[in-house]
Amino acid sequence: MTSRRSFLQTLSAPVWALPFVTPSNDEKYHEGKVLRVALIGLGSYASRVAEAMKDSKRAVVAGLVSGTPSKLVSWGAKYNVSASNCYNYETVDQIRNNSDIDAVYIITPNALHKDMAIRMAKAGKHVIVEKPMALNAKEAEEMVNACKKAGVQLLVGYRMHFEPKTLEIIRMRNAGEFGNVKFFQGLCGFRIGDPKQWRLNRALAGGGSMMDIGIYAVNGARYLIGEEPTWVTAQETKTDFVKFAEGVDETIQFQLGFPSGAVASCLSTYSMNNLDRFFLNGEKGFAELQPSTGYGPIKGRTNKGELQFPHITHQTIQMDEFAAILLDGKKPLVAVDGEEGLRDMRIIDALYTAVKSGKRVSLK
Amino acid sequence: MTSRRSFLQTLSAPVWALPFVTPSNDEKYHEGKVLRVALIGLGSYASRVAEAMKDSKRAVVAGLVSGTPSKLVSWGAKYNVSASNCYNYETVDQIRNNSDIDAVYIITPNALHKDMAIRMAKAGKHVIVEKPMALNAKEAEEMVNACKKAGVQLLVGYRMHFEPKTLEIIRMRNAGEFGNVKFFQGLCGFRIGDPKQWRLNRALAGGGSMMDIGIYAVNGARYLIGEEPTWVTAQETKTDFVKFAEGVDETIQFQLGFPSGAVASCLSTYSMNNLDRFFLNGEKGFAELQPSTGYGPIKGRTNKGELQFPHITHQTIQMDEFAAILLDGKKPLVAVDGEEGLRDMRIIDALYTAVKSGKRVSLK
Repeated sequence: MTSRRSFLQTLSAPVWALPFVTPSNDEKYHEGKVLRVALIGLGSYASRVAEAMKDSKRAVVAGLVSGTPSKLVSWGAKYNVSASNCYNYETVDQIRNNSDIDAVYIITPNALHKDMAIRMAKAGKHVIVEKPMALNAKEAEEMVNACKKAGVQLLVGYRMHFEPKTLEIIRMRNAGEFGNVKFFQGLCGFRIGDPKQWRLNRALAGGGSMMDIGIYAVNGARYLIGEEPTWVTAQETKTDFVKFAEGVDETIQFQLGFPSGAVASCLSTYSMNNLDRFFLNGEKGFAELQPSTGYGPIKGRTNKGELQFPHITHQTIQMDEFAAILLDGKKPLVAVDGEEGLRDMRIIDALYTAVKSGKRVSLK
Repeated sequence: MTSRRSFLQTLSAPVWALPFVTPSNDEKYHEGKVLRVALIGLGSYASRVAEAMKDSKRAVVAGLVSGTPSKLVSWGAKYNVSASNCYNYETVDQIRNNSDIDAVYIITPNALHKDMAIRMAKAGKHVIVEKPMALNAKEAEEMVNACKKAGVQLLVGYRMHFEPKTLEIIRMRNAGEFGNVKFFQGLCGFRIGDPKQWRLNRALAGGGSMMDIGIYAVNGARYLIGEEPTWVTAQETKTDFVKFAEGVDETIQFQLGFPSGAVASCLSTYSMNNLDRFFLNGEKGFAELQPSTGYGPIKGRTNKGELQFPHITHQTIQMDEFAAILLDGKKPLVAVDGEEGLRDMRIIDALYTAVKSGKRVSLK
């Protein structure tokens, strides 16, 4: 077992550079500072996060919140969470009295993010919320303000912000290795299945593909270009009016303009085969990622050749880095806080406005 | 030397499948039916065409038209064209009396295409015109009508319409191998040099990057999706107001919508490093070309693997196929006639309108 001191020393290296061993929860507790997380909403993505946290060095599943009693039982057994750390949506505010839990990770349908984030902020817990952080910028602002007021931190589950190949491209851009960046392209989509899922329910999802998958291109444009857009345009196409009801977007093409004159051309879709491509073009070089945001290994190359970093489950790195941010005050290369999530929500609001108006929408 | 009969038999095979030998002009004349072409406008692209025609099996440089007497002398010597087959812009109408010339290939600045095409139609010669065929759809229509009236054919220098990997993708699409096509992406651009060149002169070029390089994406979207667009949107970005004066577009992002619901997302630019990427996504497969329209070897792959065809200079194949169209009445897989060129000009007109209005423009 490593000492506290040697353990903390290793933290100064990026997580993906560390030798990879799977610590047990007991070991992690003995290491000292670990982030004890309650998962709120035990759906398929929460399951992915919980599995990934098994390999996390600094984050553990310490609590569970679900409206389904049987899930609390089965998940509790699987992740070694005692009944006293399990809650339903009526009892969850009592988490304020639970000193076993440092933070919550809200992985519910989008429409439930805001209220739960505010409740958990009031309960004095750090709030991690899955993307999109809210239904719109107004909600996101309320969340940011509530967390600020409560003195807790608010993070958004932007796992790509810790992905090594992505970070290497950002490092190269910052170092000027691409020259002035001129163009970003993000194609994000897949063919969505079950028409009854909440992601296709306007009230729960707040939209369609844009909220779920298009946001990767919005966010990717920002972290790869390294600027904030000043205008957007967007065009919606719908071919299946049954599966994609009013307010649930099937396909949106969208464009972003940046202060430097760089532009982004993006696609968000729920009806095309796996589209998962980022491309960044600068005056002196380029980078591409394909897949660019999928859960599996990211593949990428630049004008200098193929990017070579070992794959580590994104959610594992994310949770380790979230622990470092919340416990050690670490500043990540690309922000993952509520303000960062809010920026994406403002852009998505503008994109939906642009879809409706058919006109360019300026961003402040 | 092959007999006329065996030569014609080989023509039923696609040109790129033929064993590759460089015939001399004399040999070509002895073969019988060859297309005798007068080049109009002896600039750098004409030079590329003339060089490529050295390897053409069925087309020869038979005439030269230039406003620069010294060019007529040097080109005449280089391509073995007698002074009697050389013209300037005052004398070129006399080409009507020249039985050595079957067709003209207009490779002047865009603004001169229309008048020259109409003059040459009136002179009874088939007209080949480099893309863009005109400054706008109105001019293109005049050209189509003039050629129709004169009983000559009008072809546009769409060299990609004969490029083997491009044609294989079109064949696969037609055979349903990609399923329903949903998305095309065309990124076309380069960093333009000399600010004094005619391509950056609004009066001569009729626009900027869109007229020169963006047209490849317009055309590519049509031949790869296999439908005609019903709407367009477009967004212009300009960073260099000196190099790119009023009416000369530096960068335009544009989108096309098709009747099936397929969409295209394209970029036309004069200020980014070589962008030469096509991507076609269908429900069952995909294709990509990169480079997709450059002069050198095209590289491509589909969901089935890399496309394997030998590179033959595009302009060589193009001129052989033009000979087959004009002399044998061959129907190419993708049209290259004036109507085809006119379709692109109508779309480009709509794109410029969309840039100005900021609104979606419907196409009939």
